[in-house]
Amino acid sequence: MNAIKSEIYPVIWKNDQVLLIDQTRLPNEYSVVEISRSLDMAQAIKTMIVRGAPAIGVAAAYGMYLGALEIETDQRKDFLQKLEEVAQLLQQTRPTAVNLFWAISRMLKTAYESLGTVEEIKAILLKTAQDIQQEDLETCYAIGKNGLSVLPSEPHQLRILTHCNTGGLATAGYGTALGVIRSAWQSGRLLRVYADETRPRLQGAKLTAWECVQDNIPVTVISDGMAAHCMKQGMVDAVIVGADRIAANGDTANKIGTYSLAVVSKMHSIPFFVAAPLSTIDFELPNGEQIPIEERDPVEIYQVGKTVICPEGADFYNPAFDVTPAELITAIITEKGAFKPSDLSLLMSR
Amino acid sequence: MNAIKSEIYPVIWKNDQVLLIDQTRLPNEYSVVEISRSLDMAQAIKTMIVRGAPAIGVAAAYGMYLGALEIETDQRKDFLQKLEEVAQLLQQTRPTAVNLFWAISRMLKTAYESLGTVEEIKAILLKTAQDIQQEDLETCYAIGKNGLSVLPSEPHQLRILTHCNTGGLATAGYGTALGVIRSAWQSGRLLRVYADETRPRLQGAKLTAWECVQDNIPVTVISDGMAAHCMKQGMVDAVIVGADRIAANGDTANKIGTYSLAVVSKMHSIPFFVAAPLSTIDFELPNGEQIPIEERDPVEIYQVGKTVICPEGADFYNPAFDVTPAELITAIITEKGAFKPSDLSLLMSR
Repeated sequence: MNAIKSEIYPVIWKNDQVLLIDQTRLPNEYSVVEISRSLDMAQAIKTMIVRGAPAIGVAAAYGMYLGALEIETDQRKDFLQKLEEVAQLLQQTRPTAVNLFWAISRMLKTAYESLGTVEEIKAILLKTAQDIQQEDLETCYAIGKNGLSVLPSEPHQLRILTHCNTGGLATAGYGTALGVIRSAWQSGRLLRVYADETRPRLQGAKLTAWECVQDNIPVTVISDGMAAHCMKQGMVDAVIVGADRIAANGDTANKIGTYSLAVVSKMHSIPFFVAAPLSTIDFELPNGEQIPIEERDPVEIYQVGKTVICPEGADFYNPAFDVTPAELITAIITEKGAFKPSDLSLLMSR
Repeated sequence: MNAIKSEIYPVIWKNDQVLLIDQTRLPNEYSVVEISRSLDMAQAIKTMIVRGAPAIGVAAAYGMYLGALEIETDQRKDFLQKLEEVAQLLQQTRPTAVNLFWAISRMLKTAYESLGTVEEIKAILLKTAQDIQQEDLETCYAIGKNGLSVLPSEPHQLRILTHCNTGGLATAGYGTALGVIRSAWQSGRLLRVYADETRPRLQGAKLTAWECVQDNIPVTVISDGMAAHCMKQGMVDAVIVGADRIAANGDTANKIGTYSLAVVSKMHSIPFFVAAPLSTIDFELPNGEQIPIEERDPVEIYQVGKTVICPEGADFYNPAFDVTPAELITAIITEKGAFKPSDLSLLMSR
């Protein structure tokens, strides 16, 4: 049995402020940003100081509460109207991850359903944000446990490849796909993690590798184009990734490069798992074609640190996500169990 | 008709020296390195000041001549013995590209077959290096022409995706895969190039994009994990890559990431072409399993420019090449025409 010693929480509520680990500075520098205004929270989400679909949800919930604190009225109707504006501000930060919209919507619904004074509603909003955070942490533990039961039984010690960061940093703590990896490590079922570096933002190289090192989990960083070669060499037993939005049929939007990874996994008959909380499933979308795909600033491609890697005059395309069709996914691991993508619809009626 | 205005020659023989464009400094700085010793040429090949399978062949041929000049004897036997040592030095620089071994072997054979004095042999060696260079340039023009005839006929203006750099910089000039792209541009059959940035060394972002910009060819740089997504979006009509070594059955070693690209091309029924001179074909290897794959320094992964992107404590895997099985290749485009991989053996008897 291996111990998990790290306790990584990207969002912390303390002294009427939100503390965010600045994920743009890792792994070279561990620093914390103090957020006390909803506008600053929107900016932090947009610039990826906090990132990862579930963590964005938690951050946005606290952003809603910070926004609520800024509203100077004791009139319920005025308050709710201004809270809608805060919701809009936060919704405009990142278009793909559904957890953002889910958390904002839950905060709004809570406010509308609370019949007390504005002060009382504010207190309930703080409690709701804290609930969302605590629930996500428990969800991650459950995903970790459920994932363990669907991993291949052979070999006993698995080599698991993952993409982007889906760890403690991307959630309220522990992680989704990386949560499953942590569970495998704790149970002695993990030999090594292969971490795709995940261009352009390099969350695999910077964040996943950093989290693994904190927990003494053996991690090998590769560039994204090496994954297929590693599979062909027999170096990979399973692939686990996270999700930013899952359509009702199981089509899954996740970090750009995931679709490519799913195709090459299929080619090598390597099981391909998606690990995500139920809040990532968007039952209103019948399939992945309707998932909006965020395009980000080309600077993410043409510059790394201070180094410009492309000539002037070139064009760029920078989609932040892609959609993996359900038929390439072995199972979707949630807090309620692991499901074939085609069985997701069973969850809708629950 | 579009003009090709750039004349990019990575290796130039001038005033008893070899001038190399320093490809590690592009696209930010265009500088030329003067090489007058075989040891320096070996170092330049190893550190990728000059890179690209055919260009390495040309550089190694001149390296052999520079080595010959350093041998102070007029005894033919002594001379040939010392020339073998120069050959060994140069052979140890890069293990995968067969053009290196082919060029060195041709230079050695020329020396052994020359019956004159040592001075006369040296003169013949210079002539042979120049012949190798000139032949490669003509070969590239022929590949460009032959490639044009096998490109898809629809749509008329193609969007072609390529990986790594296979242009003037990677050859004696004009290029192999990028030579086909140049020919398509000149004939009005090219709409746009998609250039994989090609981690870890970023030759696509740095060199292919730079060459395209020199020729006013529209080029969009993407990170490697985006290629499959672009294909799914219907943005790519054909893929063309180069080769470092092709086995007799058509299995092809090329820059890491090529295999992944071939798999996703197959998935989307997009034709996948390899463009390379016949000297890249190693008829002594029945298939790709025997091709030695160079592993390079992990620093290429964990550092970009001066920016360290990985935490201490992580491990790395850095294979410079991978092998694409023949069945994923639509055609191999050579100076003698385009062939199905299974027809390569017909060339052996020629």
